[in-house]
Amino acid sequence: MVSGLENSVIKVAAIGGSIRQASYSNGLIRAAIELSKESIVGMEIEHLDISQLPMQNIDLEGEDHEGSFPPAVEDLRQKILESDCILFASPELNYSVSAPLKNAIDWASRPPNVWVDKAAAIISVSAGMGGARGQLHLRQIGVFLDLHFINKPEFFLNAFQPPAKFDSQGNLIDENTRERLKEVLLALQAFTWRLKTATNAEINA
Amino acid sequence: MVSGLENSVIKVAAIGGSIRQASYSNGLIRAAIELSKESIVGMEIEHLDISQLPMQNIDLEGEDHEGSFPPAVEDLRQKILESDCILFASPELNYSVSAPLKNAIDWASRPPNVWVDKAAAIISVSAGMGGARGQLHLRQIGVFLDLHFINKPEFFLNAFQPPAKFDSQGNLIDENTRERLKEVLLALQAFTWRLKTATNAEINA
Amino acid sequence: MVSGLENSVIKVAAIGGSIRQASYSNGLIRAAIELSKESIVGMEIEHLDISQLPMQNIDLEGEDHEGSFPPAVEDLRQKILESDCILFASPELNYSVSAPLKNAIDWASRPPNVWVDKAAAIISVSAGMGGARGQLHLRQIGVFLDLHFINKPEFFLNAFQPPAKFDSQGNLIDENTRERLKEVLLALQAFTWRLKTATNAEINA
Amino acid sequence: MVSGLENSVIKVAAIGGSIRQASYSNGLIRAAIELSKESIVGMEIEHLDISQLPMQNIDLEGEDHEGSFPPAVEDLRQKILESDCILFASPELNYSVSAPLKNAIDWASRPPNVWVDKAAAIISVSAGMGGARGQLHLRQIGVFLDLHFINKPEFFLNAFQPPAKFDSQGNLIDENTRERLKEVLLALQAFTWRLKTATNAEINA
Repeated sequence: MVSGLENSVIKVAAIGGSIRQASYSNGLIRAAIELSKESIVGMEIEHLDISQLPMQNIDLEGEDHEGSFPPAVEDLRQKILESDCILFASPELNYSVSAPLKNAIDWASRPPNVWVDKAAAIISVSAGMGGARGQLHLRQIGVFLDLHFINKPEFFLNAFQPPAKFDSQGNLIDENTRERLKEVLLALQAFTWRLKTATNAEINA
Repeated sequence: MVSGLENSVIKVAAIGGSIRQASYSNGLIRAAIELSKESIVGMEIEHLDISQLPMQNIDLEGEDHEGSFPPAVEDLRQKILESDCILFASPELNYSVSAPLKNAIDWASRPPNVWVDKAAAIISVSAGMGGARGQLHLRQIGVFLDLHFINKPEFFLNAFQPPAKFDSQGNLIDENTRERLKEVLLALQAFTWRLKTATNAEINA
Repeated sequence: MVSGLENSVIKVAAIGGSIRQASYSNGLIRAAIELSKESIVGMEIEHLDISQLPMQNIDLEGEDHEGSFPPAVEDLRQKILESDCILFASPELNYSVSAPLKNAIDWASRPPNVWVDKAAAIISVSAGMGGARGQLHLRQIGVFLDLHFINKPEFFLNAFQPPAKFDSQGNLIDENTRERLKEVLLALQAFTWRLKTATNAEINA
Repeated sequence: MVSGLENSVIKVAAIGGSIRQASYSNGLIRAAIELSKESIVGMEIEHLDISQLPMQNIDLEGEDHEGSFPPAVEDLRQKILESDCILFASPELNYSVSAPLKNAIDWASRPPNVWVDKAAAIISVSAGMGGARGQLHLRQIGVFLDLHFINKPEFFLNAFQPPAKFDSQGNLIDENTRERLKEVLLALQAFTWRLKTATNAEINA
């Protein structure tokens, strides 16, 4: 390992695509935070709040449409900018991403686009196929954002297939699912390190 | 023509995916309304307002999550229900549909889904490729909604390619583009009639 | 019903995307043919052979690249042209359609495109999600082809989930799956009639 | 730069999705090879021939369906395995990838999948939008293959927009396009190095 990196902590910005109270997507993020504290070295996950964002509208950006955003947007953008990578908990609605998530994505992509060149992973929970089609939309969106998604493992969760996955508050209670979630976090950490090591290696040389 | 249909008027619900003041998408809808009045027999287009919708959240649906919606949502759903077909003016953001449009779509798809079995067309205006990638996302969303999109003609408009397409208020001023827009409206009308004729034919038989 | 149509037979061109011997996709088509004979009035399904097509290459079209095709291509194109609608049994490979199916599609789309304006349905069998992602690629391809896909019911079959779906020759043996398959055929028949009735209604008027 | 890497040569496997003689896709690959020789240090591009592959069919893999392939397939797989990254020249047919390209992809993905964890870039030439929609299908396919595509710059070429892009043999003759192509090659090289540096850094530590 290149010197200095072995002690570094990866900062993960976690964004859940649902704003309802007992959202399973947010339940997955809470579980990811617990996992990162209990059993992953070198990973800090912060859950970003997107429920207070106004609907995306460049009329709210000030006269010149450059760099002046409503406070909740400014906060979100700043936290994304400071993160090393992104964890999307992306519910699938009508075979695509949710409106609140698309709204957060579009605000943060306004120039200067704060997503640029970050590693990312997607987890999703849904009925049926667990969000597989919505994830592909998010990956396509990520091409323009310039995100680097991990490919494996993919994480799709059917919330309604026994055994029970969540309690009534939307907390993840299935151990097997926690293990799969941990694998995603480790893969995201490894890919983030991999992309950053190269940059550091060049700096150190 | 089956009797009774030759005098029927197709009711089009037009939805623009941008909520900014001088939106080109809304400019396209205004142009479509003008065209329908000036030169298309049997088509009435109503521009539905989506700027007042709250962000989609089933916690706002009342305790049973069935059939009770905020007033602006209720209005939108009612107007879609009463329409014969849909005209989407769908701007492309980050290679996908806009958040305000996805929000309207998701609200109107809540049970009972009011999009079911309607004909639809998409027009889009954007930089570069004129929204071609976002349209494909909307078509995929439409599979779940059970919309029947016309395939041809496709309408992609690069707003920034000379000659000028819009004035400073976002009004469509390019005659060639108006002609292309009219072709879309006629195709939408024909496809809507085609899907409805069959139903009426069965009723009349 | 408009006169004359109640006795009409819908001709279905069925295309399986795998050329291996014991292909499950072809098994689904054989089951569809059985079902159409046993329990559906007014539907004839013909299974088109795509295993003899050369790889798509316009150098094989003759000097003028218009209307002159290798014999196996000519046959395929003729049968599609004579059909009323299409049944695709589309296996998913690497989240998309198979090469043999894409090859058949591309040959038949060469000018004059013989897919134009036909109704279509997709059935797929695969591991995992049963081909859901590949179907969406096929639907997107269909926009350019000008196919009108039914939206519901969608048919995805996980071949490896108990109970057993196929015998060792690739014959469909699961009764519940046969019922679901029949629902697709009936929906395809109804949508094909619906699109054709309109046309006939105009002719008869 | 980590020691040893500054002299390393990136081996690029280039695959063109058209098998016609005067294919523009192959013209782009020839131009890429010229550029790499003339003006890029540390990049060797080999053009892999996919015109001799049989149509993908696991019946051709021998009795156990594992590791035994027809000779042309074996050659392709070996060359991909030995490469550091992939350059796809992917023509768009009916809004998706071509059949010959899908065929090559599917053969090389048979277990053991030889695409795993390689960097990749896509260039495309087409009428109209230059292949933008087909590239998105290829990116989606790449998720399953476990390819890491560069996001920027994207390269779409409308072959028929003046000034002339190709001569009658399909050779790229437009200087501006050559510059854009070179930018893609440099970005692919940088991303390949970046992904490899991390691995080497760990080895060297």
